[in-house]
Parts: sequence; C-alpha cells; structure tokens
Amino acid sequence: MSDAMTPEAIDAFLHEPRLCAFATVDVEGNARVRPLWYLWQNGEFWFTTRTAVRHTGRDLRTHPRVAVSVASEDRPYRAVVAHGTPAVLDKDLDMLLAISTRYGEESGRRWSQASMTEADRVLLRMRPDSLVTWDYGSSA
Amino acid sequence: MSDAMTPEAIDAFLHEPRLCAFATVDVEGNARVRPLWYLWQNGEFWFTTRTAVRHTGRDLRTHPRVAVSVASEDRPYRAVVAHGTPAVLDKDLDMLLAISTRYGEESGRRWSQASMTEADRVLLRMRPDSLVTWDYGSSA
Repeated sequence: MSDAMTPEAIDAFLHEPRLCAFATVDVEGNARVRPLWYLWQNGEFWFTTRTAVRHTGRDLRTHPRVAVSVASEDRPYRAVVAHGTPAVLDKDLDMLLAISTRYGEESGRRWSQASMTEADRVLLRMRPDSLVTWDYGSSA
Repeated sequence: MSDAMTPEAIDAFLHEPRLCAFATVDVEGNARVRPLWYLWQNGEFWFTTRTAVRHTGRDLRTHPRVAVSVASEDRPYRAVVAHGTPAVLDKDLDMLLAISTRYGEESGRRWSQASMTEADRVLLRMRPDSLVTWDYGSSA
C-alpha cells in the first residue's frame, strides 16, 4: 500500500538531485517524454529548455500543458507526479546556476555560462495545478 | 557531447532494473506520465498495467501511441527514449513474473500472484518504431 507524502516529505524528496521525466504533447498530438533537470523551490518547479532546437521547447508552443514525474528507483518507491502549464521566461544566469549546480557545482557553472549564449534558451516556471504523490514506505 | 549507444550498450542499459517514465495522452489531449516497471527482451518492451483502474491503461483506448524514457541518474548520464504503439495482451503469469522479479524476486512473486486476480490487468508489448539514445560518457 502507498500513502501520500507530507508537504515536508515532498520538499525533501524533490530537493534531491534527481532527474524528472518531462512529458509534452507534440504537434501531431502524440506523447513525448525526456529526462530533464529541475529545481523545486517555494512550491514551484523550474526547468530550462530551448524553444527552437529542443523538441520539448517546441512542443510547448502548441500544447503548453505538461506532466512531470520524479520517481525513486531505490526502495521504498516514492514518486511525485505534477501537471501544470509552465510560464516561459527569459533566461537568467542566477536561475540557470540554481538549477544546474544541483547536479554538480563545477559542471553546472560551465554549463550555465555556455547556455547564456544560446539565443533560444529559456526558463520554465511551473506551479503545479495537480500534484499526486506515492510513498510505498510510509505504511507496510 | 553525447553519442548514441551501440545495440549492445542499449541491451545492457535496459537490462538494469530501472524504472521507465511511461507517457500517454489523456482523453482531453493532455500529457500524462507515470513511473512504470518494464522488461526489455529481444528488441521489445514489455509493460503491465490495468485498463480500468489505471489512468495509463485507460489512456491507451483513445491514444494508443506512447513515449517511454529510461534515464540514468548516475553519471555519466545515459538515456533511451522510445516511441511506439503497444499491443494490449491478456495477462500471463510467466510474463508478469519476468517483468516484476527484475525488481525483487520475492516481492515480484507476491505481486504477480495478486495481479493475476485483477480482471483488468493486461500486458503491453511494444516494438519501438523510434529509439533515440544518449550517452554522455562515451565521448568527453
């Protein structure tokens, strides 16, 4: 059996440097999914993508609503699945650093500097309008 | 930079007991994604879901085409993203065991026995019509 996570457990789980699976609907109406970095801050997800050279970014033009899954492969299984419509924002070095250095300080800094030169690089900010959680370890 | 994986590297990567992110399109045309067990065998994915009590299974009725991502959270990042239209097949104890015991022998056996009693439990068999891979460790 699984229980929902408490708000504190959600924050702790999403603070770990996991990848999310970021699912969009393509221009033909088919599902697409990609692993993506994220940052969870004050009840919102932040992502970064490119609106021209990345499928994920292009899909948002025609289908702005997305689904995001963050799941543990280690037991007990835990997962957070969110839906929402991200706001597409101009890139910002501080926020690119905040996202990328979660996954490695030095590599994140290098990546952020390079990404600031990409004309189509954007930030996505998403407050979930639905958030479903599972924790298979909280009961048993 | 990333390279594509060799067929042997794909088989080895997908043989590990990772979760996949299984993305569908819901009846309203929005993206949905869930963590899901899978088995990769002879160039095909096997999954299991329920066609009535699981969103994932219900979505297949109206949008049978899906997207699947398997990604490593450990460095170097590697990922396999596949698209296809799974065949929905009657459940079968041997195949439920083959999928579930990848993730734990004893728990998989218990889970499979219980799942055989679920009227809407099915198997999904998917030969990808597209398979994209990334390996950020093969070059550098």
